[in-house]
Amino acid sequence: MESNRREIEVMANLLSSNDMQADVNRAYFRKNNCLAINVIGSPGAGKTTLLEKTLPMLMLNRQVGVIEGDIFTSKDADRIAAYRVPVIQINTGGGCHLDSKMVHKVLPEFSEKGIDLLIIENVGNLVCPADFDLGESFKVIVLSIVEGDDKPAKYPVIFRNAKAVVLNKMDLEALTDVNMDNMKRDIRSINPDIKIFEVSCRKGDGLGEWTNWLNQEVANYQATK
Amino acid sequence: MESNRREIEVMANLLSSNDMQADVNRAYFRKNNCLAINVIGSPGAGKTTLLEKTLPMLMLNRQVGVIEGDIFTSKDADRIAAYRVPVIQINTGGGCHLDSKMVHKVLPEFSEKGIDLLIIENVGNLVCPADFDLGESFKVIVLSIVEGDDKPAKYPVIFRNAKAVVLNKMDLEALTDVNMDNMKRDIRSINPDIKIFEVSCRKGDGLGEWTNWLNQEVANYQATK
Repeated sequence: MESNRREIEVMANLLSSNDMQADVNRAYFRKNNCLAINVIGSPGAGKTTLLEKTLPMLMLNRQVGVIEGDIFTSKDADRIAAYRVPVIQINTGGGCHLDSKMVHKVLPEFSEKGIDLLIIENVGNLVCPADFDLGESFKVIVLSIVEGDDKPAKYPVIFRNAKAVVLNKMDLEALTDVNMDNMKRDIRSINPDIKIFEVSCRKGDGLGEWTNWLNQEVANYQATK
Repeated sequence: MESNRREIEVMANLLSSNDMQADVNRAYFRKNNCLAINVIGSPGAGKTTLLEKTLPMLMLNRQVGVIEGDIFTSKDADRIAAYRVPVIQINTGGGCHLDSKMVHKVLPEFSEKGIDLLIIENVGNLVCPADFDLGESFKVIVLSIVEGDDKPAKYPVIFRNAKAVVLNKMDLEALTDVNMDNMKRDIRSINPDIKIFEVSCRKGDGLGEWTNWLNQEVANYQATK
């Protein structure tokens, strides 16, 4: 019990210190008129692929910057750099999520680039990143439908905290046992206001709707300056 | 820096206290002649489905028990209970991994059942469970190939610490961009001794080889009593 109480106390301190730094980041984004989003999903859900498919469309209207969070390797940042957007890799070196201090440290790299939209791709993990505010305007979940329709009920925290969920790999629907009605019913029972997109990054289906929505979110953010 | 040092210290204490309890669990398994394995993978990799397909074959020769780790819900334990094996659900209530104390607490539930093999299915997470010894003989990774061939290089810790990896959803290979040669080369470069199984839980392919291997591991363990 003693050790449990100590762990809880340390976790509470850690989250509270994270939240304070997140508020500083949020003020920085506001001042720079930059919408920041925190993209969360399991390993292989398709987060980086979604960015690869979204960037060319978004870059027609917006200055986009990307932060890639990974435990090791710069594989994802290398993929994104090919699109000629400013991208910074953060390696957590074992850590299972990004925190607001890691993000704060790299923000100067984006200064004077006139970024409208900063996309922060978190470490591949559906659990831990849900608890750590990075100063973003909102969280977006990427969920591969191949993971199964029971996932929202089993990982409700992130679904409760996100503004949108991108259901990816829809091209594989017929080859799996996933029940999309159950999936969407469970998502809406956890978070009735969440925006749901059904896409196939591989085939390109549904990406226009997602990109238009994100573009509009940037416009809304900048209009409330 | 101060807070970082404190976090590192608390994490070290936590892991060391976890390791001590894990050794107690290991001694308990040895005394009861029970091979314990710790099954780790992302949400939706197919851990529970692998158990569902493995249990009927294994139960011909072995007394099997199952611990289901999840953040919330007893969905997985309910699925396993249908196979009439002793199964205990551990809900971490937000925690991203099982630890040795949680496992220790439920071990009495399996006493006097003559369990040969205890399968512990961890919380869906490829990162955090890798660091927490539960007292198992070895770890097994379940990886859906749909997650992509870059996953071993991006999540090396768990591949370094596991005895076997089950590559699941092989039936979807032709419909994805996964390169199985790259996947296996990367796995072996991290851990040359790891046993690799390629299976489709949905179609049943490759499950005989996996089950025979696991059955043999129980025999080897019990022979070294």
